[in-house]
Amino acid sequence: MNASLKSLKQQVFTANMALPRHGLVTYTWGNVSAIDRERQLIVIKPSGVAYDEMQADDMVVVDMLGNAVEGRYRPSSDTATHLALYQRYPKIGGIAHTHSTHATAWAQAGLSIPALGTTHADYFAGDILCTRPLTPQEVEHAYEDNTGVVIAETIAENNPLHTPGILVYQHGPFCWGRNATEAVHNAVVMEEVAKMAWIACSINPRLRLIDRHLMDKHFSRKHGPDAYYGQR
Amino acid sequence: MNASLKSLKQQVFTANMALPRHGLVTYTWGNVSAIDRERQLIVIKPSGVAYDEMQADDMVVVDMLGNAVEGRYRPSSDTATHLALYQRYPKIGGIAHTHSTHATAWAQAGLSIPALGTTHADYFAGDILCTRPLTPQEVEHAYEDNTGVVIAETIAENNPLHTPGILVYQHGPFCWGRNATEAVHNAVVMEEVAKMAWIACSINPRLRLIDRHLMDKHFSRKHGPDAYYGQR
Amino acid sequence: MNASLKSLKQQVFTANMALPRHGLVTYTWGNVSAIDRERQLIVIKPSGVAYDEMQADDMVVVDMLGNAVEGRYRPSSDTATHLALYQRYPKIGGIAHTHSTHATAWAQAGLSIPALGTTHADYFAGDILCTRPLTPQEVEHAYEDNTGVVIAETIAENNPLHTPGILVYQHGPFCWGRNATEAVHNAVVMEEVAKMAWIACSINPRLRLIDRHLMDKHFSRKHGPDAYYGQR
Amino acid sequence: MNASLKSLKQQVFTANMALPRHGLVTYTWGNVSAIDRERQLIVIKPSGVAYDEMQADDMVVVDMLGNAVEGRYRPSSDTATHLALYQRYPKIGGIAHTHSTHATAWAQAGLSIPALGTTHADYFAGDILCTRPLTPQEVEHAYEDNTGVVIAETIAENNPLHTPGILVYQHGPFCWGRNATEAVHNAVVMEEVAKMAWIACSINPRLRLIDRHLMDKHFSRKHGPDAYYGQR
Repeated sequence: MNASLKSLKQQVFTANMALPRHGLVTYTWGNVSAIDRERQLIVIKPSGVAYDEMQADDMVVVDMLGNAVEGRYRPSSDTATHLALYQRYPKIGGIAHTHSTHATAWAQAGLSIPALGTTHADYFAGDILCTRPLTPQEVEHAYEDNTGVVIAETIAENNPLHTPGILVYQHGPFCWGRNATEAVHNAVVMEEVAKMAWIACSINPRLRLIDRHLMDKHFSRKHGPDAYYGQR
Repeated sequence: MNASLKSLKQQVFTANMALPRHGLVTYTWGNVSAIDRERQLIVIKPSGVAYDEMQADDMVVVDMLGNAVEGRYRPSSDTATHLALYQRYPKIGGIAHTHSTHATAWAQAGLSIPALGTTHADYFAGDILCTRPLTPQEVEHAYEDNTGVVIAETIAENNPLHTPGILVYQHGPFCWGRNATEAVHNAVVMEEVAKMAWIACSINPRLRLIDRHLMDKHFSRKHGPDAYYGQR
Repeated sequence: MNASLKSLKQQVFTANMALPRHGLVTYTWGNVSAIDRERQLIVIKPSGVAYDEMQADDMVVVDMLGNAVEGRYRPSSDTATHLALYQRYPKIGGIAHTHSTHATAWAQAGLSIPALGTTHADYFAGDILCTRPLTPQEVEHAYEDNTGVVIAETIAENNPLHTPGILVYQHGPFCWGRNATEAVHNAVVMEEVAKMAWIACSINPRLRLIDRHLMDKHFSRKHGPDAYYGQR
Repeated sequence: MNASLKSLKQQVFTANMALPRHGLVTYTWGNVSAIDRERQLIVIKPSGVAYDEMQADDMVVVDMLGNAVEGRYRPSSDTATHLALYQRYPKIGGIAHTHSTHATAWAQAGLSIPALGTTHADYFAGDILCTRPLTPQEVEHAYEDNTGVVIAETIAENNPLHTPGILVYQHGPFCWGRNATEAVHNAVVMEEVAKMAWIACSINPRLRLIDRHLMDKHFSRKHGPDAYYGQR
């Protein structure tokens, strides 16, 4: 096995193991992947394997068409959704899918998570959108691929790294980033932001969206060209 | 003691111990059982014994009439409810009863847990129904047996393994599966689904039930004849 | 020191230490006491001492007038409330006071916790009542003693062990039992029941109180003369 | 390095590490500082450094103008807000800023946390106020300094130690105290009080504020000249 692929498997394994540690998954739910853009290979969690029995070497390698290239397990049943996103967005290097409690509740409610505060704006430069429902036809044939299609339809012309996550209607969140670690990081933040937004709306159903200038300031002080958050 | 019965006691013990680990019970609440269909014997948690003092050997063996066959303790006070279900449903191999917070809240609210998303549909092929109230007569005589009767009345002609759990009105959830481990697994999922449904309804009181085609897709990709979730 | 008093201090210490373990207290909040009816002495937590630095020997012994009899610390600032209850109710052997999140929220809401299900009825034979507000005069002079007075006014002619806890308006819960361990046990149950009732009312604001026959059945199968829950 | 400054760095480090232990922060969010009034130096958490990799020696020392005096890291991006408060309030010795879930939800709701019970009154002698929104100009230039300005505008003529914390609109809580430890303690209490207030308002939207005489009693029995809570 190639050294860089081995390293990627270790990264994807570590990122997957972070899901239960952050309380984002129950049992075998959830999956994280990453892409090797040069080799056009994706590393992803095996389907339905328990986290506490999983090893780095159990990660599955597939090509851009979803064909298994390496690994003794079948890849995650959501692999086609991951592929659809990697194909469309060259900037995405890692993807995390969970059924985390509060983000999933917003998806079930069929509503976008409104941008209400600086915690949200530190990571997401706008509302976290909820996709339209899939049609019966889209569910019947190539369901997981079509899930990627409606996600892309919702992202539209936006930079996917500016709002690095989305809610699939009646399903749950997909998050992404420049690599697997960032994707999981954004999944943790989305769950926290989803919980805060639920409570804030419960306290004051007539609250206002975050002021535009405050949102832009927080996003840019962390991610803009003149960012001054953190050590650089 | 017979070897297979010893093994079943171990399984039931392990399944019972999973309840506090998953945060489903307080103190001695909750009980899990399993059936040996060949011998027509049921293994169940002893009544009111603390989880952290319980041993595999403390599990109680009763016959199909509820008579103690083996064990120094009295069986769970809910034993008659377990028996009533085993008698009616040959497919059920294990049963778990808890007072888990959110599922019990739905039972107290007197409402079925609506199927709102794919997390629900991955395990339950429809709403998780709430039984009718027991009458004063049903509570007065053979209360625990009658609890089984109203559960069966609510399941009606449905396959119990397609919606492997129910809410008893003003009481709490009973879950089941092909064995004790599956029964506890379904109890964990029902609690999570109950929590999500509460939050989703709080976010958007006018949300819609999950689209039928999406529910069928998720249930069948995991449990149908052409299931492709997990390793097979 | 007398042997039985030493044993009581150990019991009260252990009961106090159970509060943070069950997530009922933050910092130094909360206090548990027990009474030696023969000697007419009360053992209670010292005021404002951190749980993780507390020893059994730090428990304070006071007489029925609240005078310190033994111990290097000052007793809990709520000692007079404990005394007021011990003086009026010979059946009470232990008292636990906490600011546990959900029970305190009901006290702040100024509402009794309604009996909505069997979880509640297994321990409390009716609603958990909320006291009336204390008057400015009652707060100004002998505040802690008057807290005991309004609790007693609310219990009225009821058997305090049938609903072993109460909410003090805009303050929080006081629970009791035949000893310190039971008092803490009831405090844990009240917090869980308070949480369930909040969620159930949120799910269905028009839910009904638990059917009287179901409540009586559950309380009596656990606490009545023909109780059949647990090992006896 | 000076001995007292070294000791202050240790205190600030310990106080920062208490934030994740109390569940108040996710990832690198939050920051705690303390001031050496004699030397006019502030010790504060470095920006964007992970808690589990942080050492006491990583704390950054800045002067009253925010110039780095010591330390290999850049100070927290919120340093100017801390400075603005130290400059205006000589009684403040430590400041803690978090995005704790429930306090932040109140800030997003744009509402003060109402004083509803004795848990609140034991620490805060009135509502925990929410600031006005910052203007686009205030956000654009000297944003963090202006955050301190609106906090001071909201405190107005009140003694900052009587309500030792505030909500910045659409942002989150800032808490303070006589030192870093007290500031974190007040942040923990504010989060708990914010959670209780949300639940209480959800249970009874028409509840009343705590009676004035009860609030004054609780605040004064703990913090007044004749305080009798704790060991003195």
